[in-house]
Amino acid sequence: MEKIFKKVVLAYSGGLDTSIIIAWLKETYGCEVVAVAANVGQKDELDGLEAKALATGASQYIELDLKKEFVEDFIFPAVKANAVYEGKYLLGTSLARPIIGKKLVEVAKEVGADAICHGCTGKGNDQVRFELAIKAFAPDMPIIAPWRVWDIKSRDDEIDYAEARNIPLKINRETNYSKDKNLWHLSHEGLDLEDPANEPKYDEILELGVSPEQAPDKPTYIEITFEKGIPVALNGEKMDGVALIEALNKVGGANGIGIIDMVENRLVGMKSRGVYETPGGTILYKAHADLEEITIDKYTQHFKQKIALELADILYNGYWYSPLTEALNAFVDKTQENVNGTVKLKLYKGNIIGAGMTSDSTLYSEQTASFGEDEDYNQADSAGFINLYGLPIKMIAQAKAKKA
Amino acid sequence: MEKIFKKVVLAYSGGLDTSIIIAWLKETYGCEVVAVAANVGQKDELDGLEAKALATGASQYIELDLKKEFVEDFIFPAVKANAVYEGKYLLGTSLARPIIGKKLVEVAKEVGADAICHGCTGKGNDQVRFELAIKAFAPDMPIIAPWRVWDIKSRDDEIDYAEARNIPLKINRETNYSKDKNLWHLSHEGLDLEDPANEPKYDEILELGVSPEQAPDKPTYIEITFEKGIPVALNGEKMDGVALIEALNKVGGANGIGIIDMVENRLVGMKSRGVYETPGGTILYKAHADLEEITIDKYTQHFKQKIALELADILYNGYWYSPLTEALNAFVDKTQENVNGTVKLKLYKGNIIGAGMTSDSTLYSEQTASFGEDEDYNQADSAGFINLYGLPIKMIAQAKAKKA
Amino acid sequence: MEKIFKKVVLAYSGGLDTSIIIAWLKETYGCEVVAVAANVGQKDELDGLEAKALATGASQYIELDLKKEFVEDFIFPAVKANAVYEGKYLLGTSLARPIIGKKLVEVAKEVGADAICHGCTGKGNDQVRFELAIKAFAPDMPIIAPWRVWDIKSRDDEIDYAEARNIPLKINRETNYSKDKNLWHLSHEGLDLEDPANEPKYDEILELGVSPEQAPDKPTYIEITFEKGIPVALNGEKMDGVALIEALNKVGGANGIGIIDMVENRLVGMKSRGVYETPGGTILYKAHADLEEITIDKYTQHFKQKIALELADILYNGYWYSPLTEALNAFVDKTQENVNGTVKLKLYKGNIIGAGMTSDSTLYSEQTASFGEDEDYNQADSAGFINLYGLPIKMIAQAKAKKA
Amino acid sequence: MEKIFKKVVLAYSGGLDTSIIIAWLKETYGCEVVAVAANVGQKDELDGLEAKALATGASQYIELDLKKEFVEDFIFPAVKANAVYEGKYLLGTSLARPIIGKKLVEVAKEVGADAICHGCTGKGNDQVRFELAIKAFAPDMPIIAPWRVWDIKSRDDEIDYAEARNIPLKINRETNYSKDKNLWHLSHEGLDLEDPANEPKYDEILELGVSPEQAPDKPTYIEITFEKGIPVALNGEKMDGVALIEALNKVGGANGIGIIDMVENRLVGMKSRGVYETPGGTILYKAHADLEEITIDKYTQHFKQKIALELADILYNGYWYSPLTEALNAFVDKTQENVNGTVKLKLYKGNIIGAGMTSDSTLYSEQTASFGEDEDYNQADSAGFINLYGLPIKMIAQAKAKKA
Repeated sequence: MEKIFKKVVLAYSGGLDTSIIIAWLKETYGCEVVAVAANVGQKDELDGLEAKALATGASQYIELDLKKEFVEDFIFPAVKANAVYEGKYLLGTSLARPIIGKKLVEVAKEVGADAICHGCTGKGNDQVRFELAIKAFAPDMPIIAPWRVWDIKSRDDEIDYAEARNIPLKINRETNYSKDKNLWHLSHEGLDLEDPANEPKYDEILELGVSPEQAPDKPTYIEITFEKGIPVALNGEKMDGVALIEALNKVGGANGIGIIDMVENRLVGMKSRGVYETPGGTILYKAHADLEEITIDKYTQHFKQKIALELADILYNGYWYSPLTEALNAFVDKTQENVNGTVKLKLYKGNIIGAGMTSDSTLYSEQTASFGEDEDYNQADSAGFINLYGLPIKMIAQAKAKKA
Repeated sequence: MEKIFKKVVLAYSGGLDTSIIIAWLKETYGCEVVAVAANVGQKDELDGLEAKALATGASQYIELDLKKEFVEDFIFPAVKANAVYEGKYLLGTSLARPIIGKKLVEVAKEVGADAICHGCTGKGNDQVRFELAIKAFAPDMPIIAPWRVWDIKSRDDEIDYAEARNIPLKINRETNYSKDKNLWHLSHEGLDLEDPANEPKYDEILELGVSPEQAPDKPTYIEITFEKGIPVALNGEKMDGVALIEALNKVGGANGIGIIDMVENRLVGMKSRGVYETPGGTILYKAHADLEEITIDKYTQHFKQKIALELADILYNGYWYSPLTEALNAFVDKTQENVNGTVKLKLYKGNIIGAGMTSDSTLYSEQTASFGEDEDYNQADSAGFINLYGLPIKMIAQAKAKKA
Repeated sequence: MEKIFKKVVLAYSGGLDTSIIIAWLKETYGCEVVAVAANVGQKDELDGLEAKALATGASQYIELDLKKEFVEDFIFPAVKANAVYEGKYLLGTSLARPIIGKKLVEVAKEVGADAICHGCTGKGNDQVRFELAIKAFAPDMPIIAPWRVWDIKSRDDEIDYAEARNIPLKINRETNYSKDKNLWHLSHEGLDLEDPANEPKYDEILELGVSPEQAPDKPTYIEITFEKGIPVALNGEKMDGVALIEALNKVGGANGIGIIDMVENRLVGMKSRGVYETPGGTILYKAHADLEEITIDKYTQHFKQKIALELADILYNGYWYSPLTEALNAFVDKTQENVNGTVKLKLYKGNIIGAGMTSDSTLYSEQTASFGEDEDYNQADSAGFINLYGLPIKMIAQAKAKKA
Repeated sequence: MEKIFKKVVLAYSGGLDTSIIIAWLKETYGCEVVAVAANVGQKDELDGLEAKALATGASQYIELDLKKEFVEDFIFPAVKANAVYEGKYLLGTSLARPIIGKKLVEVAKEVGADAICHGCTGKGNDQVRFELAIKAFAPDMPIIAPWRVWDIKSRDDEIDYAEARNIPLKINRETNYSKDKNLWHLSHEGLDLEDPANEPKYDEILELGVSPEQAPDKPTYIEITFEKGIPVALNGEKMDGVALIEALNKVGGANGIGIIDMVENRLVGMKSRGVYETPGGTILYKAHADLEEITIDKYTQHFKQKIALELADILYNGYWYSPLTEALNAFVDKTQENVNGTVKLKLYKGNIIGAGMTSDSTLYSEQTASFGEDEDYNQADSAGFINLYGLPIKMIAQAKAKKA
């Protein structure tokens, strides 16, 4: 190892990987390790982390509550944009990584660390997302990614490593799906999911809710109210973003909603398969997109679809802290000024069914939409419209006829 | 009326509108009327049409079976492209109009007609779709659109008109949703749906299937096989497109699938609300898009999303017979050469749940996707990738630091 | 005529068309006519307009100086976006129409007019641009477009009409190119230009400058300084937008710069041919785009190209006063925060040749760009980058090999 | 070095770099070196290469004439698409790399080589372009890129290395711009160009032609004829692509045309500055784009602009041998079916000035474009068009008014 560090900030989850890494960092660099746990809503996964970190060798444990910032600065922009990666993925993990990366830099500067370490595999997207966020705030900060450099190649190697050093871990050699959990979602990868031919064993996999089959036979109606594209109330009750998403996760999960199975294209070049649970998020996206139907005009709606594709790529690829993100968000925010209203939804065994919506700023006109006559629309105008709209087609047909 | 026509071809459905129009055309222009019914899969709506047409004054009745052409030349290109209008609408009506318009021109030329007439309202998209198709094949053919010119303004006016002329119709003054039916879908508009605040009365509306609540408690598994992006077999049984869609409509409808409620932006400028039933189509889109996940590479998949948006607009707007459509389809066809394989789906109470897929031409590599080491991927490569991919972010951060 | 108006506001240019229209409006509607001339930089075309308007029957003449607003609210947003229609047209006329339409509404409200009239032909884009701007601020205001309704069909008809009514005009029956002039450009259409096979007779056409052949044999160097994408100084001298564009027009025109010959697609469906002179604008676009090369990062630059295409269409089509314009401008403005610096250009016989540029906020790093080693870039990283970037290609090749 | 190769195919140019590499490969791997020179139109740079290669240690020299394939399979697709990178770069180097990469694989297979080597720097795009092409045809072929691995870091290091081994080279320690030459262009990078503030010393740099100042005072007229978007004749004389481009280079260079100065974003993350000479290419792009104005309809033209942006990125990034390229080209080819005709151009001191064009398949209609009445266009239709086209704007205005 060429470089020697004195103090390293580690993105710490308390799992096997980051526990081993504490030991490995100290052994490899002779450094002190500051374990930083970012609370982005993963709940009980945070229990007892401080004791664990210190017991396994960290010199300091710092826990950051990022839930509010995560929701307001990352999740809501994605909702406002309707950003979906490859038609399915609501970006659960992607959205949480940049903020953690940014906070790692802040901690590193505070504690005077000379490097930042993460436990991401060298095959995944998360290493990119972490590192780009770090580069955005500390372009010259050394980054340590043990999985890309050490000799440990498997879970068994990790356990051997831990046992050889008496690292106090409750571990077993059984494997499990690889998971990532936060307020917005829970992802599952690995094991039988690695063959796309396999139907996911949802009864074993699901944690945030149940499958449609196991959901209640009675539907649940809910109402979500938006102001400028941001959800502000559930069933008429004002609540902040964190509380609202938690409530939607509960009711969505109970009704079998928001389960995605997909093979996606990772940034680092390969296809990978995952199962994602995003119960509250799925409801929120649906409610928001429906409300846009009556509050945004056609041209904005259509171009916004292209903005959504771009923003989804940006988010997925970890390019969040960039001028393009800022510009895309400026576009989206402008479009949301009129996105106010309340959407009623029926949740039923995996379905989210629109049950009517209202808006004080609706652009829908019943009179104009209706079959009958109205003041704003003269049917005879259509003839002129069609003649001009179709003029290029007529010209092409005439040119063809002339040539033939 | 300035122009007088001798023989007019009428797009005939046998409903109140086109029945009245026969009389109105004869009265207005002193012309002969050839009623043309296009069979695009609307089934029993075609029963007894010939007798009806002749009884209400048509000089000739021609029925065209367009189902095969409709499926192969319109529906399948839309499926291959994953073309969806405004995120929801599978283009059921849009896809059927151009082919009918084209065939009306063919008939007009055969029977020596000097004008073509359709019964579309002046407020809708269908008038545009019909007329652009007609212009593409007969750029100088006069087109008559009675709703844009006559004095009849309502259903009651129509009935009065019919009774005054003893037009033999079984009619009543009760109104109903405005519908359009073909092999691919059934649409519903009007009445209580005109207020977006109203929850649709699905139990009264649905005809092609049942609501999720009324669907069976047991799931149904199906398998669809694709060759070059085209569905060729259901549950291992080879079948042609028409039969396959009919079968999917049946199983999809029975399982409460493919019900869409949306407020859309019409081409002619207003927003309008519709409920669409597309049971088979919804399944087909889902199966096809899933299969693309393992058979199309990332860059093609991502750009194809933009092509899909464009093609959906083109289709919705009736611009089918145009050089842009041809070019977009050429793009899409090229992307489908590798889209071969079988997709297994579980249908359950409105849900279509992926249950595994296989392809001889898969681009998915379990070895590469897996957490462990493999031959094709060296995790250490990620460090270089991230450094270069993140270089612009680093440069921006450094430039900011230098300025500050 | 169904409607009778009491007072009509007319967009007045003093040409033959709008002179005749004053008489026609009074005769047709029995109304009073308020002639409004908008000064958007057309200079001597405004001389004597008041006397002319009153002499030909207007009850009131109002002249509005819109130059500053035109530059700051229309031209600069187009420059910042690099908006070019169909690869050539710098939107000279398109940019001026919306602001005039908006001001006509303001005047109409002030003077209590009950209709607005313009003299645009029914075949052009300007009628659309005027009327959409009017609709945006007075959605129910009646609009009168004489060319779409009256019996006058040619210049000779107009002169006959004027002579029959003793309208005092210095007119002759010779025709001329159809022109539109403002601070940003001068357009020429009609006559021999209507056949795309004809080479434009530049020596007869050009008014804002000379052809490259006639330009001086010595080059002229200039320097333009930008702040946040807006030009603020010429050759080191601070000046406001109007003065800066006037100065660039002068030096650009003298050097044979900014002459465009194109066949464009009008919004109303046909192709039309025009010659445009935009000397200052062409220089400004070039200088701005060059400066962006060193002050905007790659991803923003690339996506901004798509925004430019959209904004150009929006502007050309007269959709300026719309939520989409606001959102696109919000995107663009965000991208301009770092576009500061000075661009040196050599003007020589139609050429604008970059002669070096500097920026305090440059993202260009000579060290990194250079062939040699540097601190920020490790050439060995490229191997990893290429392996991951090329992984999809490798997977496709392997899949093909396996199938073969 | 872990791997030992027996026979390595080297992309050989005869310059200092690849001469040194022959020795380095033999020394490092103990392998035989097959020097492959690809003739893509670099002319006298190929003189004496065989002798030089053998003298400096190659066991075999193979020269491939790729000019025809380069033009027909790479240059013409780029012309048809109007593909321009970042608004300026006509992709001169980008277009030549894939075909060379592909041919290296073919040679490697023929001669039984077990690795391919190129002399590209680790900071540039060309390494990526070569390697992706190689991966597309030989996904598992080892690739050697000495600049990323050896200890030589500068031109002086190279000369020292050569002298120490008595490699017979006519070399001097003076440096020069880094160049790449082929039939389509000549690029210049490095030295004083590395500071964007410097005005390029065109009189020292230019090789394919002269600067506008030095060009003749008399213009030269030329005519280019296209069939399906491909140039087939110059001044009425049929000629193949290679001859046509050579002729255009000559006349273009003589008239000071096609000189580009830009700071571009490399794929590998940094900005770099280059001066490009593309005399013939610049003329060809202009002529082709002009002809499209009258032979392609509006909707196709507009969407094709987006296709061009995508294809330019693909080409620049070396992703040529990919399904997306095939699909984009399928789109473009379809659009070119009607692009037939002859474009006349005036070349004068750096300017390419349209001088009229004709096409048997023109979509331009003088009658419709003209101010006067015509058969195909009824001006009254505009009123209806505007009312429907502007309906969304009216609805927004009304909604605002209702809220206020």
